Amino acid sequence: MDEITWHRHTQVLLMVASLVYLVAYSWRVIGALTGTAYVLASIVLFATWLVFIVDYLVRLALARDRVHWFRTHLGTLAIALIPVFRLVLLLRALTLVPSMRPTAGTQLRTKIMVYGAGAGILLIYISSLAALEVERAAPDGNIETFAEAVWWACVTITTTGYGDFYPVTGTGRLIGVGVMFSGVALAGIITATLASWIVERAASRGGDDAEPATRGQIRQLMAKVDALGPQRPNDDRRE
Amino acid sequence: MDEITWHRHTQVLLMVASLVYLVAYSWRVIGALTGTAYVLASIVLFATWLVFIVDYLVRLALARDRVHWFRTHLGTLAIALIPVFRLVLLLRALTLVPSMRPTAGTQLRTKIMVYGAGAGILLIYISSLAALEVERAAPDGNIETFAEAVWWACVTITTTGYGDFYPVTGTGRLIGVGVMFSGVALAGIITATLASWIVERAASRGGDDAEPATRGQIRQLMAKVDALGPQRPNDDRRE
Amino acid sequence: MDEITWHRHTQVLLMVASLVYLVAYSWRVIGALTGTAYVLASIVLFATWLVFIVDYLVRLALARDRVHWFRTHLGTLAIALIPVFRLVLLLRALTLVPSMRPTAGTQLRTKIMVYGAGAGILLIYISSLAALEVERAAPDGNIETFAEAVWWACVTITTTGYGDFYPVTGTGRLIGVGVMFSGVALAGIITATLASWIVERAASRGGDDAEPATRGQIRQLMAKVDALGPQRPNDDRRE
Amino acid sequence: MDEITWHRHTQVLLMVASLVYLVAYSWRVIGALTGTAYVLASIVLFATWLVFIVDYLVRLALARDRVHWFRTHLGTLAIALIPVFRLVLLLRALTLVPSMRPTAGTQLRTKIMVYGAGAGILLIYISSLAALEVERAAPDGNIETFAEAVWWACVTITTTGYGDFYPVTGTGRLIGVGVMFSGVALAGIITATLASWIVERAASRGGDDAEPATRGQIRQLMAKVDALGPQRPNDDRRE
Repeated sequence: MDEITWHRHTQVLLMVASLVYLVAYSWRVIGALTGTAYVLASIVLFATWLVFIVDYLVRLALARDRVHWFRTHLGTLAIALIPVFRLVLLLRALTLVPSMRPTAGTQLRTKIMVYGAGAGILLIYISSLAALEVERAAPDGNIETFAEAVWWACVTITTTGYGDFYPVTGTGRLIGVGVMFSGVALAGIITATLASWIVERAASRGGDDAEPATRGQIRQLMAKVDALGPQRPNDDRRE
Repeated sequence: MDEITWHRHTQVLLMVASLVYLVAYSWRVIGALTGTAYVLASIVLFATWLVFIVDYLVRLALARDRVHWFRTHLGTLAIALIPVFRLVLLLRALTLVPSMRPTAGTQLRTKIMVYGAGAGILLIYISSLAALEVERAAPDGNIETFAEAVWWACVTITTTGYGDFYPVTGTGRLIGVGVMFSGVALAGIITATLASWIVERAASRGGDDAEPATRGQIRQLMAKVDALGPQRPNDDRRE
Repeated sequence: MDEITWHRHTQVLLMVASLVYLVAYSWRVIGALTGTAYVLASIVLFATWLVFIVDYLVRLALARDRVHWFRTHLGTLAIALIPVFRLVLLLRALTLVPSMRPTAGTQLRTKIMVYGAGAGILLIYISSLAALEVERAAPDGNIETFAEAVWWACVTITTTGYGDFYPVTGTGRLIGVGVMFSGVALAGIITATLASWIVERAASRGGDDAEPATRGQIRQLMAKVDALGPQRPNDDRRE
Repeated sequence: MDEITWHRHTQVLLMVASLVYLVAYSWRVIGALTGTAYVLASIVLFATWLVFIVDYLVRLALARDRVHWFRTHLGTLAIALIPVFRLVLLLRALTLVPSMRPTAGTQLRTKIMVYGAGAGILLIYISSLAALEVERAAPDGNIETFAEAVWWACVTITTTGYGDFYPVTGTGRLIGVGVMFSGVALAGIITATLASWIVERAASRGGDDAEPATRGQIRQLMAKVDALGPQRPNDDRRE
């Protein structure tokens, strides 16, 4: 079996593993688990982690040119090693919706907006969980409930930053920095998509006749001009 | 009577109901009503709510294909159920202004800016009212007057977030999140509209002769070339 | 003497009056004037105010169609009544620089950037002065020196909003709201100008031959095709 | 030896001096040096400063037209006088990467993004160092460790501004203002680059035939039409 066949068969399994990871992590943090339940949730998290590592190693082993495969699949490595990147797989599931495939401007913009919104929501959710986990443990931390963590993440991703809640641990601040910069990027995506839409709408003023001439039209015209040619002697045609 | 006729006749009534809703809600919150006055304002609010629900049900009943109508009028359902969406009707009143209909780039941009400003002002106003209502009741809340609530909404919609005022209740924070994300979207609309304007101005450098050729021009040219053709024998015309 | 001649002669005087206004206001606020000095500065401020009012009334009187002039000069009325708008005249002085006149894309963008930067600096300066004047007088105000006011204005116009300084009076908050929204608009102008530049640069890939065909080229081509025509009989030319 | 030859030979040396400057400054601030170590680091900083001043003076002396050279090399003067601008030389090193040279849209955007990211990271790093140095010395300052300074710089450059850390000294606030405005500009660069990408993608809908006609195509077509001409008498050709 080659690498592509393996990947086609395990793709859905990996998406499910991502979802299991998300649920188990949510349960461990929001439920503030202790004792057996904590151990159980941690085992599930470790198991999903193992699934990704094993899948990565098998794909590497099955690849024809391993060095080439390694260099062109750094994203897959990141997904295998860093749990949070697995959520990208959940976003990728959105492409399975038939109308999501990009053809024209509006569909491209719809796709970008759906991906952007999905990424934003997942980011707020997962960073709330992660920040809550580390900040709750800190003695001088101020983020203590999941609701507060979500509120903090929303205040941060929009770069509002009231300062009623903020991370005080190194890890918490790292998460915060990630959320802030993602917020700037997401605001950029929203603005850029709107700009593309307005530029396009503003340009289409006077029906098809006022649209820019196309290369196809010129080719058609050249054929017409060429058709005039053969009847005359000494015609030096040039392309 | 069919659904479209009904809607044409009740459209203005619904706009008036939206306005009554806005005034009654403002009065209840800003006036900090108690006793009979509170009950009276609440009855008016309930009455406007009922008007929208009844209108929705009548339109659904009058529709030819009810399933199709339901699926294509989810916005109308949202307006009927969630009072704040009714304000969209007030914005829609702006389209009645004749010069507001979009034709060319500048008019499209003017329309977007007018809508954006209208939506921004309405959003600041209604979210100030809503936040004041829930935060004033909270024992540790810090938004206590209407002026403070408006100041908070402005600080939030621009994503400045001083942190001198911030919501502490769940509902208040939900309103805050809505205001923040709307602020990001409104900033995007302003930027995108400016970008469209600058791109268009920067492109129109050297009069009409330097504008991109149009499809209409090419069609005119093709007609000219075709006109040359018929006089010659053995002309194999192709389109 | 007609209105246009009057305006041409008084234009520079009004710019000087704007500058005098700015200096006198700065002196009164930063110097924290009291006694005779305060009265003196206030008289100068009143005098510049009077200059604008008188100029407006004279221009209205000299105008041929007063109703038309009034309707098309609402900006002039605003400048006459509200001192801060006079600074627009100082910005307008930038157009006197010869290389500032817009012709091509780059010059348009340069002009927008120069205006934007000028407006931003003036806005930070004047709003710092105004906020300092009202906040210093408030018992629970926290903006007490000019340096603090400028810092507050910069933190506000970029929508950073640390919350170490913030207005507490109604007038101060009104100024703050103005600065915030201007900040959003200025950020939009910067972004839009950059976008126009990148879109233009990204489009010009392969020299002149890869640029979109122009309407002028098509007209030239039509003339060529027409030139082929006259030699043949039964030529029905159409434009 | 002329100025250009000198510059070609010293260019790499200056980049190395910039790097030495960066390392020595980092060491002095992060290490919180005192005594001999502080003196040593300061001597190294002074030495790199001297290298830039001497290089500037030599280039000015070697220049053919010194007044012209001075006026067209104000940036070089700024780099010589203000240490932080030297980091621009480090960014310029990125152009040495072969694939970084701009030709088409995607490469232009890649270049802008790489430069933007580089500038952002350098700015966060150097402003953290500078702010830490001045704020640590202030009695009421709240930025006391390098980690806190980096966190503050990130919170500031994204214009989030929690207000848990903020500069209290004049120099610190000047640095803060620089970081904030750079943050607005960097957000603009990200948004504008995304907008250019989306506009381009949205425009390329239907393959090459639907792209706007090019000037090169029209020139080819004109040559074809001209080729039809010579066979006929009385041909008044016009260009």
